[in-house]
Amino acid sequence: MLGPTHDGDRYELTSPTAMPRAAGFLWNQKMMIQVTCRGYATAQFMQPEPAKYAYAPNLEAKTFMQPEQNYYAHHPGRFFYIKDEETGELFSAPYEPVRAPVDRYNFSVGKSDLSWTIEHLGVRVELNLSLPVSDVVELWSLRVANLSGRPRKLSVYPYFPIGYMSWMNQSGEYRADLGGVVASCVTPYQKVADYFKQKDFKDKTYFLCEEAPVAWEVRQMAFEGEGGLHHPSALQDEQLGNSDARYETPTAVVQYRLALAETETHDYRFIFGPAFDDAEIRAVREKYLGADAFAAARADYARYIAGGRGCLRIETPDKELDNFVNHWLPRQVFYHGDVNRLSTDPQTRNYLQDNMGMSFIKPSVMRSAFLHALSQQEASGAMPDGILLAEGAELKYINQVPHTDHCVWLPVALKVYLDETNDYGILDVVVAGREDGIALTVAERVSSAMDWLLQTRDHRGLSYIAQGDWCDPMNMVGYKGRGVSGWLTVATAYALNLWAEMCEQRGDATPLAADANRFRAGAKAVNLAANEHLWDGDWYARGITDDDVRFGISRDVEGRIWLNPQAWAILGGTASEEQRASMLAQVEEQLATPYGVAMFAPPYSAMRDDVGRVTQKHPGSAENGAVYNHAAVFYIYSLYTIGESDRAYQLLRQMIPGPSEADYLQRGQLPVFIPNYYRGAYHQYPRTAGRSSQLFNTGTVSWAYRCFIEGLCGLRGDGDALLVRPQLPKEWEGIKVTREFRSATFTVSIQRADVEEIQVWSEGKRLPDGRVTGIAAGGIYALVVLIPRSGSAT
Amino acid sequence: MLGPTHDGDRYELTSPTAMPRAAGFLWNQKMMIQVTCRGYATAQFMQPEPAKYAYAPNLEAKTFMQPEQNYYAHHPGRFFYIKDEETGELFSAPYEPVRAPVDRYNFSVGKSDLSWTIEHLGVRVELNLSLPVSDVVELWSLRVANLSGRPRKLSVYPYFPIGYMSWMNQSGEYRADLGGVVASCVTPYQKVADYFKQKDFKDKTYFLCEEAPVAWEVRQMAFEGEGGLHHPSALQDEQLGNSDARYETPTAVVQYRLALAETETHDYRFIFGPAFDDAEIRAVREKYLGADAFAAARADYARYIAGGRGCLRIETPDKELDNFVNHWLPRQVFYHGDVNRLSTDPQTRNYLQDNMGMSFIKPSVMRSAFLHALSQQEASGAMPDGILLAEGAELKYINQVPHTDHCVWLPVALKVYLDETNDYGILDVVVAGREDGIALTVAERVSSAMDWLLQTRDHRGLSYIAQGDWCDPMNMVGYKGRGVSGWLTVATAYALNLWAEMCEQRGDATPLAADANRFRAGAKAVNLAANEHLWDGDWYARGITDDDVRFGISRDVEGRIWLNPQAWAILGGTASEEQRASMLAQVEEQLATPYGVAMFAPPYSAMRDDVGRVTQKHPGSAENGAVYNHAAVFYIYSLYTIGESDRAYQLLRQMIPGPSEADYLQRGQLPVFIPNYYRGAYHQYPRTAGRSSQLFNTGTVSWAYRCFIEGLCGLRGDGDALLVRPQLPKEWEGIKVTREFRSATFTVSIQRADVEEIQVWSEGKRLPDGRVTGIAAGGIYALVVLIPRSGSAT
Repeated sequence: MLGPTHDGDRYELTSPTAMPRAAGFLWNQKMMIQVTCRGYATAQFMQPEPAKYAYAPNLEAKTFMQPEQNYYAHHPGRFFYIKDEETGELFSAPYEPVRAPVDRYNFSVGKSDLSWTIEHLGVRVELNLSLPVSDVVELWSLRVANLSGRPRKLSVYPYFPIGYMSWMNQSGEYRADLGGVVASCVTPYQKVADYFKQKDFKDKTYFLCEEAPVAWEVRQMAFEGEGGLHHPSALQDEQLGNSDARYETPTAVVQYRLALAETETHDYRFIFGPAFDDAEIRAVREKYLGADAFAAARADYARYIAGGRGCLRIETPDKELDNFVNHWLPRQVFYHGDVNRLSTDPQTRNYLQDNMGMSFIKPSVMRSAFLHALSQQEASGAMPDGILLAEGAELKYINQVPHTDHCVWLPVALKVYLDETNDYGILDVVVAGREDGIALTVAERVSSAMDWLLQTRDHRGLSYIAQGDWCDPMNMVGYKGRGVSGWLTVATAYALNLWAEMCEQRGDATPLAADANRFRAGAKAVNLAANEHLWDGDWYARGITDDDVRFGISRDVEGRIWLNPQAWAILGGTASEEQRASMLAQVEEQLATPYGVAMFAPPYSAMRDDVGRVTQKHPGSAENGAVYNHAAVFYIYSLYTIGESDRAYQLLRQMIPGPSEADYLQRGQLPVFIPNYYRGAYHQYPRTAGRSSQLFNTGTVSWAYRCFIEGLCGLRGDGDALLVRPQLPKEWEGIKVTREFRSATFTVSIQRADVEEIQVWSEGKRLPDGRVTGIAAGGIYALVVLIPRSGSAT
Repeated sequence: MLGPTHDGDRYELTSPTAMPRAAGFLWNQKMMIQVTCRGYATAQFMQPEPAKYAYAPNLEAKTFMQPEQNYYAHHPGRFFYIKDEETGELFSAPYEPVRAPVDRYNFSVGKSDLSWTIEHLGVRVELNLSLPVSDVVELWSLRVANLSGRPRKLSVYPYFPIGYMSWMNQSGEYRADLGGVVASCVTPYQKVADYFKQKDFKDKTYFLCEEAPVAWEVRQMAFEGEGGLHHPSALQDEQLGNSDARYETPTAVVQYRLALAETETHDYRFIFGPAFDDAEIRAVREKYLGADAFAAARADYARYIAGGRGCLRIETPDKELDNFVNHWLPRQVFYHGDVNRLSTDPQTRNYLQDNMGMSFIKPSVMRSAFLHALSQQEASGAMPDGILLAEGAELKYINQVPHTDHCVWLPVALKVYLDETNDYGILDVVVAGREDGIALTVAERVSSAMDWLLQTRDHRGLSYIAQGDWCDPMNMVGYKGRGVSGWLTVATAYALNLWAEMCEQRGDATPLAADANRFRAGAKAVNLAANEHLWDGDWYARGITDDDVRFGISRDVEGRIWLNPQAWAILGGTASEEQRASMLAQVEEQLATPYGVAMFAPPYSAMRDDVGRVTQKHPGSAENGAVYNHAAVFYIYSLYTIGESDRAYQLLRQMIPGPSEADYLQRGQLPVFIPNYYRGAYHQYPRTAGRSSQLFNTGTVSWAYRCFIEGLCGLRGDGDALLVRPQLPKEWEGIKVTREFRSATFTVSIQRADVEEIQVWSEGKRLPDGRVTGIAAGGIYALVVLIPRSGSAT
């Protein structure tokens, strides 16, 4: 088996070559680390902007997080060389840099740790990585076991490359007083003001050993010599050279000489991370470096992860799916909501959607985030391009480019929160503006945002796109100030309707009733405009450029049909039933692939000046016609809203790698997260189509979780009730669900029966409209849900 | 012999391991490339900012040119694998990536090409790299010769890694129509405006083969496979896989299957570079890819290099020195003056000094550059931090940090030009200000700059340092606006005196006479202030901080004595003879090392807030106590001005690697250029002291050339004359010199004789004051110069 297997708790790989980029990721409140099955690692921590403590071998550009990391021999990683002292034979765990074909290989990804077991030359090596909850420290354990039935003499060399730290200053040495290698640098700067920003940075990298080694090497070049990483010269000598690094690329290699009796094992522990000074290194050593401390930290961390376990447990005919939905998906949602992708200025749409997902895990987090975002609303009602989270943070990268969609996400995210909590009191909370100090209620602010959306439309009633909307790199459609977005137009209708609905929920007697009417009318006008100017006969156009060119239409050879305008025309109530039918047929025909629905098709093959950056991306990259999961999940959600259960489920299932081996190998990713995209250009580049970006930062996951909860299982809050409307795919006879909702627990058995319509039974009574009301906190409710047999009407 | 040898024309190395970073560099009017003896390469070209066409394996930071490039397996390079088809044995030329110990190795650095000869497995591989004069094209020839006396079957694989081109788009494929690999990318951008700046970039990289290969590989990962670069998987198969790269790191590998008869040889030619589109690639192929075209381009290029050959040929007892001074030093001076370090905004001081060197090579270039620099003078008389050379260029990096020394370099550079040309007419040229259009003569502008220097002093008469002077990273001495520079104070005196001298040269009747008097008086006042506030008993202080702390003084434990204030106190006439004597003794005692005089000592070991960035650099790095050759050469020049001939020569000689093998190995550099620094901290870090930065961009070279011409050989222009005052080291009995000067040629024989003072003889007549006057363009003059035997007074 080349693809992964799982034991219900962990995913495992038994070959380092079949899916070479397959990785697990761990994070805590201060850092994240992604480690591939072969030992390459990408780690960063916040001070307050993302920083590194293990670097590339050259000066690396600082940029936003990139998909499809490129690995090469000197990429940062964590490695352990094992040398048989008697024969000179060498291998390394997990696999790099020696790449020896080993007797047994196992890479095991757990929710709160990563581990490897490698057997070779009669030796078993077990590695484990875990993190503490709130310090930037990697906890590594290494167990070496003699399997050979005879005494052995080994040298064991942990090798933690540190890389090119800084052009300003870098050095490293073994510090007997601290018990490990300490490398130091100075973060480079040229302007005086930067000195004061950076002088408290953690510019030291430590690698500490619980047990003192017999020798070490701190100079990368001295370690490798002419042998290269696959056969380092320093390992050919009896003992490492104990040299330091002085403005030379530092590394951390230590040597243990290990005599193992016939069946003996030996345990080592190491910690790796950044620090400000010796005192901090000493303190970290005290706190973490020991068997008991490791065990305690692991238990703490497991509790932390369990704290984000989500509100849904399913038992379906698809065990792989159950595992993903019950464990890995809420874990990824929790990651997004808990640390906001380790950014100090998340894009507003990401911040709102990531926290929207927290409504299902820790609603109080979503509540605070929503209020925090609103505090940065501009006086015009517009939302800024990014939400600043840290003192001194500033808008960076794409957040310096004006986008027009941010207001849309306010009612979208709020609706999920209110359905989940019924906390309509939030609408009356007063939020002071960060800049102007003006105090407005949440309701007033959301209304103001909706008014901004209504105003920011052209003479036809279509929404301006400026330099982009949800699709970042469509940056030249409207940069002259005239171009409009088809998606944003219908998304505006959706947002207005959602907010009107929430206003109506408060009742006719409230001041919001007038707003509800205004926004309902606004949505209607927007939809009229969309149907007049954007409907292209079988689907909606993506937009109209500054120079009045409609695009995303049937006569376009490239970028002919876009997924988002169709999905949101469903959500926004723009499309009639007939329009929906033709749209869906076209989406299936033009966008469907075995790895999901593409964001648009055909991909652009060359620059189109009036569309912009998206056309310069690689066909198959995130934006240029890939299966961009965030767009795909909007479509899936829209399908659930119109009862297209079978197709919705198929697409949801396609979003998760597997279960076939061929699928795993093509995607190259373990099913422990949903990546932001799978390569597209399925017809143009079949070799690479489906390949995972390996990037686990994505707005997809809160929606995917919502689709499982509210769509597939059909267990959505509605005012004071839980509304039960499951939408199982036709091939399923039934499922069992446990749903936590408003501090009560619902065990739900959903099964096919000879019924005409869905019946929801509780304690022997059929509930009208499938609504569970009178829910008591702490209550346990057993529901039986009967659904029509497939083929029958739902 | 592990160190290099030379044949009078080329430097050669016979081992790739003894001096692993030893490199040669070539440049033309659009690009430069530095290639190590092992095959790693760093190349950049202008469009108009520096750009790459072979990239690192990861996203690389854009920064100013760094010293001490760090090499690692996937660093860009140019490699050729040779496989014996019958045995499967493999090696690579020049040495990387296989690193096979070969039978014979020769790396040969010429003035206009780089070449290698490698013999292994009975095969000789000859490589040659040259450039055309004004296109960005690498011309590579490869000759494979059978030495084994029997027929051979080989596969030959040129491997030109292209690297991680762009996160926005990258791909590559073999193009049969173009005859090679073409990789494409899009330079990333997020802001619309950048699209228009970048859309005409040469975003394609081509590797074209004169002879069509049998197979190719364009995907880096497919090439390496599990074998790694030292034993690529693709080379273990009979034939390369012919695959393309689609948003995958591209590479260029092609395969030739070569059957060689007993003594047969086979020639290949390749070209490598960037292009905008297919048409350009086709045109480049037409123009360059063939035996005749290569030969023509090489001849053109050799002529181009010969055009910068300089004005001095020496024959001394030191043949290594002769070779360096006659060929390599003027070549490096020419590089600086011809392409301005491939920058669009050279620092003003660099621009002026680099062009100052052109006075000895192509004075017209210096003349234009001087006028160009003056056109960017500010209305206040201040010079900007950088000189903009290209349309749309802007001040970057360190040029955004305010420095106060730029005006000093105007008279310093101008004096060299005037001495060399006697073109005093330049003083009357009218230069319009770039910003304000105000028309002022050169003389008025220089006077205005001198007035600015006089004004920009504190109440004590000392020069403000702002965020730095010549020593960039001394950025916190005066950032609050009060700190002063000891060096800049005495340098101001020097500049004022120089300019006064030039004014006086025009004669008493000119309007400049008044300026001369004013600036002479100013210099005197400045020197008085320096002696009152900066003289520390045995040397001059480096400065006084914002908070009134003198530093660079005897009670400092670190940064106690700085070289520049002493050297320039000699030049500026600040120091009395007694002061000079004590200063020189202290410099020798505290700063001298076997690799030259350190910029200051002892190096800082930790941050000193009131000094700044220099203290955060690594001890031994360019700024923190290294032998910074630019500072060292000022000192050497100052020694020549006071007749300290022996020491001046010793230090000048120390600036060039060799001639002892130990010296070569420690510095790790071939004597084909002077690097910007040798590592310092000689007492603290002896292991690394002396190591070359390998960076050939340095203001040192124009001064070093000047020291040889005007100091050692003593052949300096003075008004309408050539002044002859050689200063040979005492161990030399005599030298022969050919000096080109004002379009005449002087052959000078300098010899020791029983004379009391220097005697200069021409056509049997002794010339009064050693001045040759009445020089006719095209004239040939034979001079005999008799100098006192060592031990006698000069």
